[in-house]
Amino acid sequence: LVLQWPVTLILSCQRPSLISSRYVSKTATKSVSEFEYDAPSMKTAVPGPNDIQLCLSPGPQNVGAVHFFCNYEESRGNYLVDVDGNRMLDVYTQISSIPIGYNHPALMKVMTNPNNVSTFVNRPALGILPPENFPDKLIESLLSIAPSGMRRVQTMACGSCSNENAFKTMFIWYRNKERGYANPSEHEVDTCMINQSPGCPDLSILSFMGAFHGRTLGCLATTHSKAIHKLDIPSFDWPIAPFPKLQYPLEEFVRENAQEEARCLEEVEDLIVKWRQKGKPVAGIVIEPIQAEGGDNHASPDFFSKLRNIARKHGCAFHVDEVQTGGGTTGKFWGHEHWGLDDPADVVSFSKKLLTGGYYHRDELKPDKPYRIFNTWMGDPSKNLFLSEVLNVIRRENLLEVVTRSGKALLQGLYTLQTQYPHILSRARGQGTFCAIDACNDATRDSIMIKARNKGLFMGSCGEKTIRFRPALVFKEYHVHQLLNILNDVLAEHK
Amino acid sequence: LVLQWPVTLILSCQRPSLISSRYVSKTATKSVSEFEYDAPSMKTAVPGPNDIQLCLSPGPQNVGAVHFFCNYEESRGNYLVDVDGNRMLDVYTQISSIPIGYNHPALMKVMTNPNNVSTFVNRPALGILPPENFPDKLIESLLSIAPSGMRRVQTMACGSCSNENAFKTMFIWYRNKERGYANPSEHEVDTCMINQSPGCPDLSILSFMGAFHGRTLGCLATTHSKAIHKLDIPSFDWPIAPFPKLQYPLEEFVRENAQEEARCLEEVEDLIVKWRQKGKPVAGIVIEPIQAEGGDNHASPDFFSKLRNIARKHGCAFHVDEVQTGGGTTGKFWGHEHWGLDDPADVVSFSKKLLTGGYYHRDELKPDKPYRIFNTWMGDPSKNLFLSEVLNVIRRENLLEVVTRSGKALLQGLYTLQTQYPHILSRARGQGTFCAIDACNDATRDSIMIKARNKGLFMGSCGEKTIRFRPALVFKEYHVHQLLNILNDVLAEHK
Repeated sequence: LVLQWPVTLILSCQRPSLISSRYVSKTATKSVSEFEYDAPSMKTAVPGPNDIQLCLSPGPQNVGAVHFFCNYEESRGNYLVDVDGNRMLDVYTQISSIPIGYNHPALMKVMTNPNNVSTFVNRPALGILPPENFPDKLIESLLSIAPSGMRRVQTMACGSCSNENAFKTMFIWYRNKERGYANPSEHEVDTCMINQSPGCPDLSILSFMGAFHGRTLGCLATTHSKAIHKLDIPSFDWPIAPFPKLQYPLEEFVRENAQEEARCLEEVEDLIVKWRQKGKPVAGIVIEPIQAEGGDNHASPDFFSKLRNIARKHGCAFHVDEVQTGGGTTGKFWGHEHWGLDDPADVVSFSKKLLTGGYYHRDELKPDKPYRIFNTWMGDPSKNLFLSEVLNVIRRENLLEVVTRSGKALLQGLYTLQTQYPHILSRARGQGTFCAIDACNDATRDSIMIKARNKGLFMGSCGEKTIRFRPALVFKEYHVHQLLNILNDVLAEHK
Repeated sequence: LVLQWPVTLILSCQRPSLISSRYVSKTATKSVSEFEYDAPSMKTAVPGPNDIQLCLSPGPQNVGAVHFFCNYEESRGNYLVDVDGNRMLDVYTQISSIPIGYNHPALMKVMTNPNNVSTFVNRPALGILPPENFPDKLIESLLSIAPSGMRRVQTMACGSCSNENAFKTMFIWYRNKERGYANPSEHEVDTCMINQSPGCPDLSILSFMGAFHGRTLGCLATTHSKAIHKLDIPSFDWPIAPFPKLQYPLEEFVRENAQEEARCLEEVEDLIVKWRQKGKPVAGIVIEPIQAEGGDNHASPDFFSKLRNIARKHGCAFHVDEVQTGGGTTGKFWGHEHWGLDDPADVVSFSKKLLTGGYYHRDELKPDKPYRIFNTWMGDPSKNLFLSEVLNVIRRENLLEVVTRSGKALLQGLYTLQTQYPHILSRARGQGTFCAIDACNDATRDSIMIKARNKGLFMGSCGEKTIRFRPALVFKEYHVHQLLNILNDVLAEHK
């Protein structure tokens, strides 16, 4: 093992002997705000000396994307601690996947409950040999938050697997409709074994420019946010519609935005017709409630409602990908709840903050035979244990209200900053704490992010020049003020 | 929630009040043989009354494939307990994914060690913010068992994600070679965003008829074991070579088998040339050391060695899928070790018994840029904790020797049974305890399996009429005798 880590992306193999413990909690209390730290605390620039002195350490994993190495034991609530003892206010939360902050006491308890040990130690093949309590656990966790009109859920290990299997569910549903629910022909059975039509039909999924639905080959054919995701990977000839490019704040550009949305919807219908004529009918449409990786692009409830109707009209399934928007971060549990529809979708996929991947679907999309949607693990019951507890905390601590309140303060603060620094910032936008703001260019955006990090604020980026805010649901108004103060300091110093 | 479960596939929502505890261990000792039960114990047929009386219970998950519901708390070592208190000798082990038996004391300890709690509670985005000890943990776990010639490993959440990303790694490597390691052209960058060539090139992966490499869309294009996996799902036009159909026992048909293997290898070369001419060059060849789902099809070390050379000669990457064969079950840690090659592959993927998914690759296949192989979680460090402990147990208890010894006894026993019941059984074969035997047809196979289950032996099937044996690594010779006794009883009663 003689591989080297890139100098800027450093590995510390040392134990955290240099890190003084700043753990301020007395005992494991129920509220994160009492449990967590009170503010960021920076000892060094990031990456710090613990990282840098070890920059030539060997490592077996490819680490080109590593920002810094973390001390998760010392991280608490909204604060992430690195290997140099730097404690940052974390509004990126592991790419938006930490629901209620680090080391939440409620989750620690899941680990120390002896009744749970077996669930962690014996991972079952859920599709054939589920634990006796698995349906109950699903009902108390995932089914308690099921989207309107959906009573079925299929767990999966991650977001990509969830979308891949959601696509398969739509293809199976579509072909069953086409053949009038008859058994497949012998020719179909034979040809599918060698990847040929009609057994493997030329069906397509319609996606949107700027979308991100994952990186496995099926998902990747519907992902169009960055070239680095897609370059050199074979793909499918599937239709790609424009996603509305709206002007913000939305309420100030209602007419212009409605026109732009109408243009995109028209294009969607044209593509559906065109691909049907091409012999590659659209079995499903997949869309995010807010395009996340693609730059935090919003659209109106009216747009989604009309798109859902277009899907229905053309016999396509409608798949809402809530991998990043789901879990409460928009102020409602699901992003699509903001549309106010009783029948918002045929399929809703999730992962990240839900801790387990999976997807809900309407009864009609239930596969006609067993083993059509299947793999060895089909999820992980130990993740459902954590999810149940997360949902308890969300209810007990009214976290959706917290998100709504903090989101308003955050967005208001971003409006103020962009008014103050109009040459640097623009297009502040958001729903709940799922907020974003654009810098004037990518270099400025990256520079702001690094300076903020060195002052104890860790943010994420998306799109070409966007800063995205993805705090945990326990992000309170005083955290918003910490964030805005640091950001203001950085902008004030910005040349 | 008013959905119903199929009557034959039943859900019990009751707590295990009917189940008498038969836990025979005194305390948590180090050896599973002292810890586990001493024999199967059947109270009812399977599914039993606890299942049947609740057959109309509601359930949110599609359960068409469910065999029975399990009581994992009461399961121990090689014995799986169902919700009716039936205790079966389990030689299927959750589709070959339980390495050292149920509730192994060493794994229970991982859960109760307070140093590990944070790893379970705070799942990181490994690609950007790894825990400080992650490289160390990789070195002591996955790197300690790295295949010959490989010093790099990428963890993933499951087998399908592992293979999808392994394919991507081969595509990236292949295109980088083709463009002479220059930067991609603007045209490539632009076209990849809309799924078009040259950015998304027409590259292919060569696979084998009978193969199973997963069910996501990329993997599925290389899977050719059963139509139910593939029907109605769009696929890629990739080449499919015949896998040798050998005669067993291998040592009695050396000449015939060598001829069959030569035929298949010739076809592989023809396909590589043909697909290159078609404009869809083969970037990689993927193969299992033993085709598992496809019916436990073996090939000789000579076949694999020649195939590896063909890949090298034609500039294709060579990917060995060890998802089912890896982890010690063949008597060596990796199935490919039986080939005796110093440079067995460019990529080796794994999952199941390794508890985490992932793949090793040669240095040469390292992606040239960060974020080309990436997703939110990129594995799960809590699974590596369990894997480290599994590897300790394998070493401490010499489990590879145990597997070799038990495997010999099992295969010998299967030879005896097929001699005794030649009208029912044939083609016994195996490596380590990774054994199989064919029934005369699928109905007989299924009937034998159900009868054996009712006598306390739970087996799996594969291919068209094959019984496959996939016991845990702690499957001792006395377990082999229990298995053979039950199987003999079933066959003796068979009409």
